[in-house]
Amino acid sequence: MSAAAELRLVALPGFAQVASGDDLAALTAQALSRGGLALRAGDVLVFAQKIISKAEGRRIDLAAVVPGAKATELAQSVHKDPRLVELILRESRRIVRFAKDVLIVEHRLGLIMANAGIDQSNVAEPAGGEFALLLPEDPDASAERLRERLHALTGCEAGIIISDSFGRPWRVGTVGVAIGCAGFPATLDLRGQKDLFGRPLRVTVVGHADEIASAASVLMGQGSEGRPVILVRGLATRAPAQPAAALMRPRQQDLFQ
Amino acid sequence: MSAAAELRLVALPGFAQVASGDDLAALTAQALSRGGLALRAGDVLVFAQKIISKAEGRRIDLAAVVPGAKATELAQSVHKDPRLVELILRESRRIVRFAKDVLIVEHRLGLIMANAGIDQSNVAEPAGGEFALLLPEDPDASAERLRERLHALTGCEAGIIISDSFGRPWRVGTVGVAIGCAGFPATLDLRGQKDLFGRPLRVTVVGHADEIASAASVLMGQGSEGRPVILVRGLATRAPAQPAAALMRPRQQDLFQ
Repeated sequence: MSAAAELRLVALPGFAQVASGDDLAALTAQALSRGGLALRAGDVLVFAQKIISKAEGRRIDLAAVVPGAKATELAQSVHKDPRLVELILRESRRIVRFAKDVLIVEHRLGLIMANAGIDQSNVAEPAGGEFALLLPEDPDASAERLRERLHALTGCEAGIIISDSFGRPWRVGTVGVAIGCAGFPATLDLRGQKDLFGRPLRVTVVGHADEIASAASVLMGQGSEGRPVILVRGLATRAPAQPAAALMRPRQQDLFQ
Repeated sequence: MSAAAELRLVALPGFAQVASGDDLAALTAQALSRGGLALRAGDVLVFAQKIISKAEGRRIDLAAVVPGAKATELAQSVHKDPRLVELILRESRRIVRFAKDVLIVEHRLGLIMANAGIDQSNVAEPAGGEFALLLPEDPDASAERLRERLHALTGCEAGIIISDSFGRPWRVGTVGVAIGCAGFPATLDLRGQKDLFGRPLRVTVVGHADEIASAASVLMGQGSEGRPVILVRGLATRAPAQPAAALMRPRQQDLFQ
């Protein structure tokens, strides 16, 4: 599916201090021209969830959150701030597993993830307040808006991926995954394709946007580098666009819920 | 941890027909010079598990496999060839889940994976025979041997990752993961590091080699392209080398077994 023999990933500068209401597409167009890069058809831009949430005003002041009885009780089991647990429960359909320091939920979007994706790191705290950052309301829609606005600004059809870092069962460490996707296929369905020797392929569906989110995550880093936007160039993906929602396995098809 | 602002991935040519006993390090050195690339310190080479297994003679003739009673019974439930199921059971510590078309086991190496990683695609079938390809005996040791031999051939210390494609609970599609690693840190431990605003990082351990295996997988493709070796250049990882075994979560620390 991907005929290119070379892939290039470039971190775009200038996103360290994104605030509510910022025009990320305009910031991206500026960062591209500062870097001497013109967007091309086939390029993909990977945005860290954090800056999408910041730009969309998803920052919550913990001082304004009153934990209910369920959150207060659960907070004791998982050793977390009851106000944070209250937010996690509000953002979730159900609790999947919990233990000391661990709270895995099904987010209202359908994502199985720790803490409903709510983040307290890299959230500015003016006047010493405590804030948390929720996921975007609808990351696929956020990606589509970014795609359209970048097209309007640059004349170019780029794919957009919104990435987050997820822990995983069975394996140590987080990896980048795609929680939003537009103008790009979230998965590649290889069913019916043959291998080098004409035998049907063992692997039939590839988590394409997840693999690209992981690739971008290597450059983004996790800490104070402030590199939340990565240009991916050289993909030769030929498949219809598909949102990141397609990466969520339906519960009845999952043996591990 | 990764200070570079740009990452380059290049598929190396010339690995379509790897056979038992082939010197992969020598083939890699040849492919690099054919591509006008000299290996540099800090480079990482990602090898698809399949060519490691082929070079190490891990191909099994299914005609020589006699399925036992357990394999024969299980084969009916999972709709697979009883001889293949026999091989899967021999390669496994235990069955984790099974259903029609699905057999998830704990491989003797500790990996939780489908079919014990046994592959029937892209395995040459002379004279119409049927063959299966087992994982390398010890992928971390395979990676270390490749690293040492490449060092001897090129004078350069490159990191080595051996990748495979794994399905995942909760998410659709396979992604590249690292099953072997040498001269490179399989995980990055960020505990104690601070974010942009001096707050402890939410993400504390990153599945670094898995993210790089996923990045390489985008270029490798799954089918007839025959691009099983990817050079990754531009990583600025500063951490001690650590084998891929570190990516396997101990069972007692896992809420999903």
